[in-house]
Amino acid sequence: MQPVNVFEFEALAQTRMEPAAWDYYQSGSDDEVTLRANRAAFERIQLRPRTLVDVSACDMRTTVLGTPVKIPIMVAPTAFHCLAHPEGECATAEGAGRAGALMVASTSSTRSLEAIANAASGPLWFQLYITDRKGTEELVHRATDAGYRALVLTVDSPRWGHKERSIRSGFRLPSHLRKANFPNNEAAEATIALTWESLAWLRSLTPLPLILKGILTPEDALLAVEQGVDGIIVSNHGGRQLDGVTASIEVLPEIAAAVSKRCEFYLDGGIRRGTDILKALALGVRAVLIGRPALWGLAANGAEGVYRVLEMLRAELELAMALAGCPTLDRVDATLVRMT
Amino acid sequence: MQPVNVFEFEALAQTRMEPAAWDYYQSGSDDEVTLRANRAAFERIQLRPRTLVDVSACDMRTTVLGTPVKIPIMVAPTAFHCLAHPEGECATAEGAGRAGALMVASTSSTRSLEAIANAASGPLWFQLYITDRKGTEELVHRATDAGYRALVLTVDSPRWGHKERSIRSGFRLPSHLRKANFPNNEAAEATIALTWESLAWLRSLTPLPLILKGILTPEDALLAVEQGVDGIIVSNHGGRQLDGVTASIEVLPEIAAAVSKRCEFYLDGGIRRGTDILKALALGVRAVLIGRPALWGLAANGAEGVYRVLEMLRAELELAMALAGCPTLDRVDATLVRMT
Amino acid sequence: MQPVNVFEFEALAQTRMEPAAWDYYQSGSDDEVTLRANRAAFERIQLRPRTLVDVSACDMRTTVLGTPVKIPIMVAPTAFHCLAHPEGECATAEGAGRAGALMVASTSSTRSLEAIANAASGPLWFQLYITDRKGTEELVHRATDAGYRALVLTVDSPRWGHKERSIRSGFRLPSHLRKANFPNNEAAEATIALTWESLAWLRSLTPLPLILKGILTPEDALLAVEQGVDGIIVSNHGGRQLDGVTASIEVLPEIAAAVSKRCEFYLDGGIRRGTDILKALALGVRAVLIGRPALWGLAANGAEGVYRVLEMLRAELELAMALAGCPTLDRVDATLVRMT
Amino acid sequence: MQPVNVFEFEALAQTRMEPAAWDYYQSGSDDEVTLRANRAAFERIQLRPRTLVDVSACDMRTTVLGTPVKIPIMVAPTAFHCLAHPEGECATAEGAGRAGALMVASTSSTRSLEAIANAASGPLWFQLYITDRKGTEELVHRATDAGYRALVLTVDSPRWGHKERSIRSGFRLPSHLRKANFPNNEAAEATIALTWESLAWLRSLTPLPLILKGILTPEDALLAVEQGVDGIIVSNHGGRQLDGVTASIEVLPEIAAAVSKRCEFYLDGGIRRGTDILKALALGVRAVLIGRPALWGLAANGAEGVYRVLEMLRAELELAMALAGCPTLDRVDATLVRMT
Repeated sequence: MQPVNVFEFEALAQTRMEPAAWDYYQSGSDDEVTLRANRAAFERIQLRPRTLVDVSACDMRTTVLGTPVKIPIMVAPTAFHCLAHPEGECATAEGAGRAGALMVASTSSTRSLEAIANAASGPLWFQLYITDRKGTEELVHRATDAGYRALVLTVDSPRWGHKERSIRSGFRLPSHLRKANFPNNEAAEATIALTWESLAWLRSLTPLPLILKGILTPEDALLAVEQGVDGIIVSNHGGRQLDGVTASIEVLPEIAAAVSKRCEFYLDGGIRRGTDILKALALGVRAVLIGRPALWGLAANGAEGVYRVLEMLRAELELAMALAGCPTLDRVDATLVRMT
Repeated sequence: MQPVNVFEFEALAQTRMEPAAWDYYQSGSDDEVTLRANRAAFERIQLRPRTLVDVSACDMRTTVLGTPVKIPIMVAPTAFHCLAHPEGECATAEGAGRAGALMVASTSSTRSLEAIANAASGPLWFQLYITDRKGTEELVHRATDAGYRALVLTVDSPRWGHKERSIRSGFRLPSHLRKANFPNNEAAEATIALTWESLAWLRSLTPLPLILKGILTPEDALLAVEQGVDGIIVSNHGGRQLDGVTASIEVLPEIAAAVSKRCEFYLDGGIRRGTDILKALALGVRAVLIGRPALWGLAANGAEGVYRVLEMLRAELELAMALAGCPTLDRVDATLVRMT
Repeated sequence: MQPVNVFEFEALAQTRMEPAAWDYYQSGSDDEVTLRANRAAFERIQLRPRTLVDVSACDMRTTVLGTPVKIPIMVAPTAFHCLAHPEGECATAEGAGRAGALMVASTSSTRSLEAIANAASGPLWFQLYITDRKGTEELVHRATDAGYRALVLTVDSPRWGHKERSIRSGFRLPSHLRKANFPNNEAAEATIALTWESLAWLRSLTPLPLILKGILTPEDALLAVEQGVDGIIVSNHGGRQLDGVTASIEVLPEIAAAVSKRCEFYLDGGIRRGTDILKALALGVRAVLIGRPALWGLAANGAEGVYRVLEMLRAELELAMALAGCPTLDRVDATLVRMT
Repeated sequence: MQPVNVFEFEALAQTRMEPAAWDYYQSGSDDEVTLRANRAAFERIQLRPRTLVDVSACDMRTTVLGTPVKIPIMVAPTAFHCLAHPEGECATAEGAGRAGALMVASTSSTRSLEAIANAASGPLWFQLYITDRKGTEELVHRATDAGYRALVLTVDSPRWGHKERSIRSGFRLPSHLRKANFPNNEAAEATIALTWESLAWLRSLTPLPLILKGILTPEDALLAVEQGVDGIIVSNHGGRQLDGVTASIEVLPEIAAAVSKRCEFYLDGGIRRGTDILKALALGVRAVLIGRPALWGLAANGAEGVYRVLEMLRAELELAMALAGCPTLDRVDATLVRMT
């Protein structure tokens, strides 16, 4: 039977994956307080639908950093797609492009960034973990050359969170897989503790726009704006880094106030429904990112599964826009929601 | 054993219906957040009963748009009553009239509006879905001719909500049933996306008063008043359209403030107890509407079941009025409740 | 094994009673929202204990309307004690007196008010349901003559709440029992809907002080004070009358403000722990009343069981006073609690 | 399999202990409302992590009353460690010292304070219950002589709380164990009800600094400061004394305001995670204390188990500091948390 929603893709994906790999994907850190909070927070935001608006056609086309996209949904950077499907990130990129979505490829991919770029039918950004400066310079140049349109620097991971569910099931990257961006296996396990000063160096390496991923406070959002970053991904790393932090959707109002339209910002964390996306858009994001749902689609059916998950969310968002009285994205504003 | 409350009618009805039809009635959209919220919200409203008032006789007679009714409880428009009982909407109308309640017949009835009018022993309103202009004009004329006393335009359904429980059980209208208001089967599946401008056209078709059903914001309530509508049904379509919207009872205070006594307003959504009705009345509604409970009564025992459900709610409301110190409806005001 | 708390008396009592009688005692009205709220509300009130106070001896002696009592715990009026034990209210009165507690005998007792007075070793008040004026006059004169020290008029019961659990188990007073205050079986089923004007008539019948039971709003508390009543029992009838009203403990702050020390007030509803009593005392009550717990003691072991329940609560209250830093009741004030 | 968090040490410890002893350790008083609140409160405090800070080395060294410690985690005074392990408090002291933690030895230890001091490899404080003045004077002199660096006077226990779980399992100290600080078995069961005036006497006995344990209100914190105490342990005795008091973490903001940096204060109650410690530090404490977790480690594996639990919490705290953007403790302030 066909999945009727993203949660059914989750159930389907579990049947297709090795248990330890599944636990690696699903696990949050420590007590998974933040993992659960990411979902629970959406339920506390109520929609205030308007009626008698002409919604015979709902248009969700937009741009992200100037790049036109058909849907305000991006694929978040996640590690090791080959755990879900043999074609890994290449299949993800193919499915995302078919759905009109931008994909953010991860440093920790199991296909090389060039292979992903070759397979992609839509726009790409490149996510960066920095383990050493020299290796980073190479990666940035390769990403620039391969046509990635922006760099996404993850700033919430100076160390790795303690994903206990995954630790208990003893996950290790299977021997037939590897971090494909590091052909000589030179990827360090630890990242470098970056500082605001590191951004100037990074900017010197490439003309690509720079996005920070993992900002959760208006103080940091303001610093980011002052540093001239091009975008901010509000994220708690899917509940996988510091447990106990706020659900990412909950901080959007204060992030929006701090940013004050000086750069784009996006939301990552807990998106499972078209109405979740509508709520995030109402709170000011340019687009949202989905992490685990894309992997569920990938595990369920490769590129086609990724496409199906994105298409399902697109259809749900379109329906939500229509029922909320919003024929276009510029009608989606803060009057549409009530935080409780 | 006789049901002692409406919830026991629900259990009884389930035993009398086909599972897929049952799921169609019971389902909310998506995650059913709003469906659950409709009930949970009543529990958060506390009653503040007054004592030592003469409540030896409690009188709940009132009028709705000038029509006298014995009880401030109306039967909400719902589709396909023949799923619950062979006599369908005709039995519902008979039971409602016997209980002194007004019934709102649905465009999507399985008995024609004329047949319903013939069977009815009480006042009727006609609910309108607009799928095409020409068909609508005919319907409105027929309803006017058949003695319906008002038009109820549903404004929350430019598209249909995603009722997943019903999708999973594969509900389709059984082949022996059909939308009886469309003898040539010309009913379109999709509705037209109406706008505020459509109201003038609708008013031009009939002298009947016009009520909008599905308003959830004070902004839209204000627009409705400014357009001169005669009444507003505050409703989230029983949690079947946009999931994540507010429980309908929760928005009554702000609707009341926006309307400021310039038109009547009513509540639909989650009414299962006499005390629920008392709370809604305290928050300013002229009357409430019950959807599923009437169908449960119908499934349980036809017209008699509908009567019994309404009579049970009347008795509960009368007891609640007495215990709250309100011998008449004009004693039921906002001092009776505390929102928590 | 000996019960270590009141809840274990509850479990024990259930094993000693007929199921239908048990359901009659335990049932709340309708959905039992208020019944549950009575307990849940105590958990939301936090204690703020003070330290380094000399609590080597804690003294909880007080007076209620001038009558000295050893403990600020009274036995609430409840019906039909012979359902719990053959000696009925006589055993309750014996146990209460032994524990130093005042008992409020109910109009609906299964022992006559004179028999109860004979069996009692402590002070008594008489609770009044008014079913007809003539019968009431007789009752009041009999209670005055028998030495009852105050009249408690129940004002929350112009009609009886709908105790569905009890309805389902088909409770009726067993044929060997009867309302003993009505030797010719003349007790009417219905009560009279009293008004504030009725109080003058009642006062004319007896010099006894008058207490109103069932007040839940500051508005009514103020009217009561203005009518010169001597005391107020803040009560929702153990969740057995109007379902959906506030937990009785929750309204104490506003009742205290309205009363402004012009009469005594008491709390009834949900008391199961010494700390519950401490919280109520902190919010200004002169004493609390226990209903079901006394019946549980009675069912478990007659007069001895009633004594044991009261003594257990006394010991818990004494310990709570000591641990909160309150050697006397006048140290128990609103600074001891935080409402959350 | 190695425990991956403190909760797994709890499960392991249960398998190693006699059920009655286990219940004695685990039980809270009465309904265990406060015991549960201690944990639930941490989940309501959200972390606000900062990014792009150099956290390549996180330093948590600090001092408590001038004594340098490697970690801001102390072992709380708890009774009868020999229930958990034959070496009792001596093993605890050895494990704590190895982890760089200060230990507070209890008056109710099953090893003498001198034996504990001999076994200890780290700094010690001595907790005092006062059952009679003469015995106390001796104890204080012995503790001073044995090198304990401060006295911790427990002020929340003028009487013992009612630990019902423990009462039901019939816990008694096994005959082969005894309160080792009272060689002639002269320890009284009851404590003396101390007053603020008692502090002067206590100070006259020893030059050691004095800490009060069991303060929960800003009023008492202020009195403590005015009396010149050197430190305050904010504690509800692990939910074992007055049930219904606030979670200890919840009162930190008002305690901090009252103390206004005039003495050190610490938190005891519900610490199970590095992030719990981080939250307490953000709210102003100098260090936290762990009670049951140290006993779980002790039961699981003696001194090594105690060390492992402390080391686990240290590692979790270090990771939390890094992920929150705090390389040192002075970066941990109230901006790091949001109370919800």
